Amino acid sequence: MTEFKVTPWNVEGDIDYNKLIEQFGTQPIDDKLIDRVKSLTGEVHPLLRRKIFFSHRDFDWILSKYEKGEEFALYTGRGPSGHTHLGHILPWIFTKYLQDAFGCELWFQLTDDEKFVLSPQLSIEDTIKYSYENALDIIALGFDPKKTRIFSDISYAKTMYKHALQVAKKVTFSTAKAVFGFDNSTNIGLIFFTSMQSVPAFLPSIMHKKKIPVLIPSAIDQDPHFRITRDVAEKMGYYKPALIQSMFLPSLEGPNSKMSASKQNSAIFTVDTPKQARKKIMNAFTGGCSTLEEQRVKGGDPTVCTIYQYLYILFEHDDEKLNEIKRRCMSGEEMCGNCKKYLAEKVVTFLKAHQERREAAKDRLDEFMISD
Amino acid sequence: MTEFKVTPWNVEGDIDYNKLIEQFGTQPIDDKLIDRVKSLTGEVHPLLRRKIFFSHRDFDWILSKYEKGEEFALYTGRGPSGHTHLGHILPWIFTKYLQDAFGCELWFQLTDDEKFVLSPQLSIEDTIKYSYENALDIIALGFDPKKTRIFSDISYAKTMYKHALQVAKKVTFSTAKAVFGFDNSTNIGLIFFTSMQSVPAFLPSIMHKKKIPVLIPSAIDQDPHFRITRDVAEKMGYYKPALIQSMFLPSLEGPNSKMSASKQNSAIFTVDTPKQARKKIMNAFTGGCSTLEEQRVKGGDPTVCTIYQYLYILFEHDDEKLNEIKRRCMSGEEMCGNCKKYLAEKVVTFLKAHQERREAAKDRLDEFMISD
Repeated sequence: MTEFKVTPWNVEGDIDYNKLIEQFGTQPIDDKLIDRVKSLTGEVHPLLRRKIFFSHRDFDWILSKYEKGEEFALYTGRGPSGHTHLGHILPWIFTKYLQDAFGCELWFQLTDDEKFVLSPQLSIEDTIKYSYENALDIIALGFDPKKTRIFSDISYAKTMYKHALQVAKKVTFSTAKAVFGFDNSTNIGLIFFTSMQSVPAFLPSIMHKKKIPVLIPSAIDQDPHFRITRDVAEKMGYYKPALIQSMFLPSLEGPNSKMSASKQNSAIFTVDTPKQARKKIMNAFTGGCSTLEEQRVKGGDPTVCTIYQYLYILFEHDDEKLNEIKRRCMSGEEMCGNCKKYLAEKVVTFLKAHQERREAAKDRLDEFMISD
Repeated sequence: MTEFKVTPWNVEGDIDYNKLIEQFGTQPIDDKLIDRVKSLTGEVHPLLRRKIFFSHRDFDWILSKYEKGEEFALYTGRGPSGHTHLGHILPWIFTKYLQDAFGCELWFQLTDDEKFVLSPQLSIEDTIKYSYENALDIIALGFDPKKTRIFSDISYAKTMYKHALQVAKKVTFSTAKAVFGFDNSTNIGLIFFTSMQSVPAFLPSIMHKKKIPVLIPSAIDQDPHFRITRDVAEKMGYYKPALIQSMFLPSLEGPNSKMSASKQNSAIFTVDTPKQARKKIMNAFTGGCSTLEEQRVKGGDPTVCTIYQYLYILFEHDDEKLNEIKRRCMSGEEMCGNCKKYLAEKVVTFLKAHQERREAAKDRLDEFMISD
C-alpha cells in the first residue's frame, strides 16, 4: 500500500481518497446528494457529477437551508505562492458554477500572509505580487462582480485581524499542534495563521449583521483549517461553515509527483504560452506501453494516465466521448500521441480565452477587490 | 529568601531587582550613565536620579548616538485591560521627560489585541474602550502632539500586521516558549502577539525610510518581548532597540500584593475621586508599629512603607524633605497618619490637575491618535 500525506501545506504520495474521508472524518458525496442538487438547479456540474468533488461536511444542511428559501454564501481562497495552475482553478470553476446555480455571494481570500510566513524563499513583496496575479485569474473565470469580494489578508488586515483575534483566543497551541502537526520549530506567524483562514467563514454574517450559512468549496487539503473554524463557529455565534471538497488535479509527471511552481513541467500555468502548454502535455506521463507495437496488442491504461485524468477532471465534459476515448485506449486502437494532441487543443483553447479575459481583468480589479 | 516571578503578564512576590538584572541579563543604571545624561540635558529626572529606572540595554549606545548628533525615537506602550493607575503612569512620566530633554518622536502602542487574547473576562469591545480611556491619560501627561503618535494595535492593524508577519516568520514556538513560558494550553493569539509588540521598535525607521535608533522606556516586566525584538531587529535591517527599565510602584496593600484593577484598594486610579484616593492612602500599608506608644519608642520602618515608597518614587522630588521624613519616621517623631495626609494632599493635587487635562484630552484625540 502506498503511503500518502495530506495537510494544508503538503500533499504527498498516491492518495487514497476513500481512506482520506475516513481519516478526516468527512462524508462522501453520494448519488442522493447529486440528485438533490439536480432537482434544485436543473443541472449538475461535471466536477460534481463525476465526484471530483467527492467529500463534504454538512453540504446536505446547506441544501436544506436553500430548500427553505434561505440564502447561503460561498467562501474559497488561494495561497498566493506563485502563478495559478490548472489544479488551483479546479475548485474555482466549481465555485463559479455554485455562484451561478444558487445565486450566492462569494468571499475570496488570498492568503498572502500565510504564504509569506510559510515559505523561506518568498518575501512579503512576492506574496503581495502573486495576490495580484492570482486575482486576475479569479476575475477571468467570470465571477459576478456584484456578488464577489476578493481580498488579501494583508490588504484587508484591519478587518481580518480583529475577527481573527476572536478565533485565536479560542484555539490553544495544543489544538493547532494536533490539527496541523506543528512542532517547536514552527514559526509563530504560521501558528496564528489559521485564525485568519477562519474569518471569511464569518464575514458574510458580520457584514450583513445576521447569521448566514456559508459553504466552502476547496480542495480536501484545507479541511484541517476548517475543522478549527467549525469548532469555534458556534461559540462565536455563527453557523458552522459547510464544506464541499475536491480531489487534486494530478501532476503531469505522473503518480507520486506534485504539481508545483518549482517543477514547471508538472503543471500548466495560466500564464503559459500555447507552445509551453503543448510541450508539457506532449511530455506528460501516460498509461501507454513502451512501444507502439506493444500498445496495439495490450492497449493502454487510462487509470494511471495523466492525459485521461485531465480530460476526465476538467476538459471533456461529454461522457460518451470520454468513454470512447477510454475504450479506444484500452483496446489498443488509439496511441498516446493522438490523445495528447486532443487534450492539448482543448487546453490551448482554454488558455487563449482565459488569457484574454485575464488581460481584461487588469482594468476590472476595482469591481472585485476590497481592502481597508 | 522570598520567591518572585516577573513576566509581561504576571508579577508576583517581593522582587529582588538586582537579581532580576542577573536573571534577565540587563545592565544596571550606574552613576556614570546618570552623569552622562546630566551633562547632555542639564537635568536628571528624579526617576533616573533615584534609580527607579534601574536597568537598561544599550542606553549608553543611545547616548553615544545622541552625542554624535543623531536623533533617536521613543517607544512605549500600555496594555488596556482597565483604567490607568499611578503604577502605569510612572514610565510614561519618564518618557515625557525623555521626549522633552532629547526632543524625541514618540510611538505609543495600546495593545488592545494582547489584553483581549490574554484575559478570559475581557471582550474586544472592553479592550478597545480601555484603549480610549488610557489614551486620555497619556495625552493628559503633556506629550508633544507634533512628536507623538498614539495607536492601538486593532485600529492600526493594517500597518501593524504586515510588519508583525516579518517578525513572526523569524520567531519559532520554541523561542516563544522559552522566553514567555508558553505551554500547550496557550492560545495562538497570545503566541503570535509578541510580533505585534516588536513592530513599533521599527516604525520610526519604516516611516522615515532610514535606520533610526529607538529607546524603549518601560517597566522591567516587558523585557522578554524586547529580547525577541532585539534578536530579530538586525536580521530585518533595523537597529536593535535600546531599553531603559523601571521598578514597579508597589501596591498600597504592602509587599506580596499586586496593584490591579480587580483590587481597587491596591492602587490609585486616575479616575478616582479625591475622596477615594484619600481613603485608599489612609488605609495603606505602612512601616508603623501597632500602637502609637510603641512607634514613639521604636520608630517606623520606611523601607517597607508604601507611603514612603510613593513619596520616594513619585511624589517628593526634594531629597532634603524626603530625608527629613525618613529621619522623623525612624526616630518615632512622626506618626503614620501625618505622613499619609502629606502624601494624600500631593496625590489629590496631582489627580485634580490630571483629571482636568484628561477631560480636555477628549477633544484632543485627533492631535495624537493614528489609525489606518
